[in-house]
Amino acid sequence: MGKLLIVGTVAFDAIETPFGKTDKILGGAATFIGLAASQFDVDSAIVSVVGEDFPQEYLDLLTDRNIDISALEIVKGGKTFFWKGKYQNDLNSRETLITDLNVLANFNPVVPDDFKDAEVVMLGNLHPSIQLSVINQLKKRPRRIILDTMNFWMDNTWDELQEVIKHIDVLTINDEEARQLTQEYSLVKAAQKIYGMGPKYVVIKKGEHGALLFHKEQIFFAPALPLEEVFDPTGAGDTFAGGFAGYLAASDDSSFNNMKKAVIHGSNLASFSVEKFGTERMLSLEHKEIKDRLHQFKKLTQFDIELQ
Amino acid sequence: MGKLLIVGTVAFDAIETPFGKTDKILGGAATFIGLAASQFDVDSAIVSVVGEDFPQEYLDLLTDRNIDISALEIVKGGKTFFWKGKYQNDLNSRETLITDLNVLANFNPVVPDDFKDAEVVMLGNLHPSIQLSVINQLKKRPRRIILDTMNFWMDNTWDELQEVIKHIDVLTINDEEARQLTQEYSLVKAAQKIYGMGPKYVVIKKGEHGALLFHKEQIFFAPALPLEEVFDPTGAGDTFAGGFAGYLAASDDSSFNNMKKAVIHGSNLASFSVEKFGTERMLSLEHKEIKDRLHQFKKLTQFDIELQ
Repeated sequence: MGKLLIVGTVAFDAIETPFGKTDKILGGAATFIGLAASQFDVDSAIVSVVGEDFPQEYLDLLTDRNIDISALEIVKGGKTFFWKGKYQNDLNSRETLITDLNVLANFNPVVPDDFKDAEVVMLGNLHPSIQLSVINQLKKRPRRIILDTMNFWMDNTWDELQEVIKHIDVLTINDEEARQLTQEYSLVKAAQKIYGMGPKYVVIKKGEHGALLFHKEQIFFAPALPLEEVFDPTGAGDTFAGGFAGYLAASDDSSFNNMKKAVIHGSNLASFSVEKFGTERMLSLEHKEIKDRLHQFKKLTQFDIELQ
Repeated sequence: MGKLLIVGTVAFDAIETPFGKTDKILGGAATFIGLAASQFDVDSAIVSVVGEDFPQEYLDLLTDRNIDISALEIVKGGKTFFWKGKYQNDLNSRETLITDLNVLANFNPVVPDDFKDAEVVMLGNLHPSIQLSVINQLKKRPRRIILDTMNFWMDNTWDELQEVIKHIDVLTINDEEARQLTQEYSLVKAAQKIYGMGPKYVVIKKGEHGALLFHKEQIFFAPALPLEEVFDPTGAGDTFAGGFAGYLAASDDSSFNNMKKAVIHGSNLASFSVEKFGTERMLSLEHKEIKDRLHQFKKLTQFDIELQ
């Protein structure tokens, strides 16, 4: 069993999709990452911040899944980070309606002593200075530091983002962001440019079109499972990252072959996440369902071809 | 060796991409289909029409590859079908600048006697009445009738398209067109609706995002190979169809497993087609290159995962 340190938002989300809308429900990158990673044999801890308005029931959901929340700061009198968004009809584009940073505005992450030697560190989408602060608090170099980010930080904190990217092993990013970060349209060329910034591995997330893993000259592709119903894409990328990081922390194997498996596990868990609003599907998820869907992934992608 | 009957345009294309532009060069759905299929052990024939302006050199390119052009009508004094198009910067959208039907306007396809018992019939993108006329001339039911079409025919010849779709085994169509045809956003649901129209198999082409094969409850996915340079997407869909149909005609196996291989062969050949303008890359393609890239496809997609 490995240690996984997770940094990211714990939040309230309000979501509107063509299929319905929610009031404030449990959300945040670290939440989705933690729930996905808890499917593996890991000791994980979340470094984050919430306000006094954050319900005990949500904290219990995390501790019930063996997630250490001793470094989840609860700010007295503070309000939890709130995001409200609306998806268009095709679910591929969304509009942010409200972003209330609240307690996140003055967040100083403190890594718990027990996790300063974590094998895997998953830096969820956040201000790059917070991500860097976490790296600086570590006692030893983790086996893998994985960083997720988005276009907002490229637009507003370019230098800080470049600085933290120097220190990581794996960058996870979506296709449009990879193009923005590198000014390369070809994802193959984009990955090569990102190697030059620091990371040895690049994961490019393409949403319903799957995910690509790049390492040196090697490329691996995992599709998204074609689904009859996609209900709410919120948290799918974080669930992917959590499955990826959780699998890597649980296994003591740094080979490319094992990274491929981590991508499949991440894609598999993300395929559940989108089936209901927010964290709902992840909270009801059973081991047998995960296993059955891994079988579906194999059927979807595996073939045998003669190479004369 | 099986017989493959190909119906579709043989044309002049003029293409503009962000990387350059061409004058009138060899194009047309049947041309790309025929060149791709000629990589397999098949007897193929093209049913199409050109004008007197069509160069002997282009006819020779086809006969050199053992493609029967006895049913490629040459209209005295006529002009060959001409298409001019321009791709946007991301190569995912294109604008049609000129469509001169010329001799195609009055085309009456005549299936050669030798191919009235073809094992596989590939109906390239054309007016659905022409596609239906070809089916009606066959002496026996082929093992597979494959039909490719596009949104233009849905917009303008809906009833004729529905009629021909009743008679086919495999529909190949792109993702947006599948949605337009079925009014379903989910491709899984779209495929199920298409089964109800006649075809037992549906291939949904997603361009740079790969292709999906549907049959009953089974789904198989083949990615597009991530490339450093995509030069010209013209003909990629037809090359895919030609590889798919050519492989099926060359093999005497109607299993889903074999259909999966056909999808991989189609995707593999399409990955070459986009590397140069028009048919240029397909004309220089060597067996060793094809084999090497099949290896890359395996590496890109194959994984081994423990299912406890």
